[in-house]
Amino acid sequence: MNNHNTFYSGKRVLVTGGLGFIGLNTCARLLDLGAEVTALDNFIPTQITPAFDAVRSRLRLAVADIRDAEKVERVVRDQEVIFNLAGKSGAADSNKTPLNDLDINCRGHLTVLEACRTFNPGVAIVFPSSRLVYGKPLYLPVDEKHPLAPESIYAAHKLAVENYHLIYGRLHGLKTTVLRISNPYGPFQTGEGRAYGIANSFIRAAVSGRPIILFGDGSQRRDYLYIDDLVEAMLCAASAPQAHGRIYNIGDGQGTSLLELAELAVATAGQGEIVRVPWPEEYRAIETGDYLSDIALARNELHWSPCTGIHEGIARTVGFYRR
Amino acid sequence: MNNHNTFYSGKRVLVTGGLGFIGLNTCARLLDLGAEVTALDNFIPTQITPAFDAVRSRLRLAVADIRDAEKVERVVRDQEVIFNLAGKSGAADSNKTPLNDLDINCRGHLTVLEACRTFNPGVAIVFPSSRLVYGKPLYLPVDEKHPLAPESIYAAHKLAVENYHLIYGRLHGLKTTVLRISNPYGPFQTGEGRAYGIANSFIRAAVSGRPIILFGDGSQRRDYLYIDDLVEAMLCAASAPQAHGRIYNIGDGQGTSLLELAELAVATAGQGEIVRVPWPEEYRAIETGDYLSDIALARNELHWSPCTGIHEGIARTVGFYRR
Repeated sequence: MNNHNTFYSGKRVLVTGGLGFIGLNTCARLLDLGAEVTALDNFIPTQITPAFDAVRSRLRLAVADIRDAEKVERVVRDQEVIFNLAGKSGAADSNKTPLNDLDINCRGHLTVLEACRTFNPGVAIVFPSSRLVYGKPLYLPVDEKHPLAPESIYAAHKLAVENYHLIYGRLHGLKTTVLRISNPYGPFQTGEGRAYGIANSFIRAAVSGRPIILFGDGSQRRDYLYIDDLVEAMLCAASAPQAHGRIYNIGDGQGTSLLELAELAVATAGQGEIVRVPWPEEYRAIETGDYLSDIALARNELHWSPCTGIHEGIARTVGFYRR
Repeated sequence: MNNHNTFYSGKRVLVTGGLGFIGLNTCARLLDLGAEVTALDNFIPTQITPAFDAVRSRLRLAVADIRDAEKVERVVRDQEVIFNLAGKSGAADSNKTPLNDLDINCRGHLTVLEACRTFNPGVAIVFPSSRLVYGKPLYLPVDEKHPLAPESIYAAHKLAVENYHLIYGRLHGLKTTVLRISNPYGPFQTGEGRAYGIANSFIRAAVSGRPIILFGDGSQRRDYLYIDDLVEAMLCAASAPQAHGRIYNIGDGQGTSLLELAELAVATAGQGEIVRVPWPEEYRAIETGDYLSDIALARNELHWSPCTGIHEGIARTVGFYRR
């Protein structure tokens, strides 16, 4: 494994979308490694929990939208590493408001990259893309050579922003890496509903005694990645010169069905129930069927492996929401 | 070959970017087939030639930018077929002004597709993408399964707009087809410079006695497609039910080096000279090397084949510019 203690200690690191789910976990880990962390976010949560506050109090916060070029330019100037996590989630939403998705996800990220090109072209940037760029898998597990066939505007824009990062790497020297992540879950997910991750929405439902709504029979298998493993992969990518200009699948590499996930959430929480409903059309239309990541490339080149299985990951997440 | 006489006669057809190079040629052909043609364009050429006027006088003209949702909604309402050719060309330019390219090419096309989804979801739409979505070829000839690796913002946006068309087809029922075209050339190219097509810029230089500027040794081979063949492919795609939701390479399928092209332009025009200069950095950075289209899929499914060789195509284009 990489020696992050050495690499990140004292480094100036920017996390865009730093108060979001992946962002907060990334900031927390970077702070533990001794980095000087700036979180850029356009949103301050109204419900401040002690866990949130413990991270928040240790980082610099820049309140700005990534589409605000002037503010972004000021923030990126002196950074050594950027974890470029800002953006709008939600594949089903994106199909309803595609122009809004375009504005936030494409214009926003082009604004960040333009600022880096002008004021900080040597910076290392990691961009978390999505396994959704592959669309319905033609084979499993899905490796990075799988054809690209986004099924939603969200996924089409993730692919566009991947290409922005790679192009800015080739043309302007930015040290950019793209990660195609599966379904991350874990602590600090504060949003509600499916747009914020199916695993977390199931776990939160169980912990709060609400029913878990399962579309169809729940047989479709997904690749659930515990957030600490994702953060570790991002940290590896930014610190490894061989990762610049590259694309890696990041997932657990193990398949779990939605039904198993729901049952595990109920069993771990010790409460909750599973309610089956027919597929709503807006979800059925973009449902991609089974998905499983082939993570051999990341194992070989980043020397990274996931180390938190689904049982342990759900137990830790249940513990977080209980506190 | 398709029987276009039957299909397009009396059809209401919209050509976005209808006063551009591909647009004018498409309008001219559709008018000859008896279609009711509307050209939507935000630009009226200041130098009106007799050839331009002969086409212009026979079509309905809607002056609007494709980003103007209200005007676009009015224009798309009663159309049966749309050739969606509007947009900004120029790969090198796009890397200098990426946000402008995003606004015109992505926001513009999403605006057209949103208007169709709301007011005309049964329409057939053909979108001409670019062979540039493939990036540097890994093998020749390049088929539709070749990996996608856009080297410019322009190409990244072409890929995004491809995906918009395919997604609107799957989710909203629009009958969309994507064509990945090589290097089209021929009459009605009114813009100047490389951004408007290398073949035309060479031919126009030779006809007007200006030197042809060749970057490097001119050895890189490209696939030059005569405009009439491209128009025929687009007409086939919109009229063939089996083409909806599909992607096809459209090219000549024959390789010609830049030097051969320049020599042929000089020989056909009977004047001009070739001047070699070193590669400018902005072009070298996005140069993709040899390219050749594999057009087997279009031959088989669209029953289309190119029928104008490079000698005849250049002779016809020289003739056009002489008049």
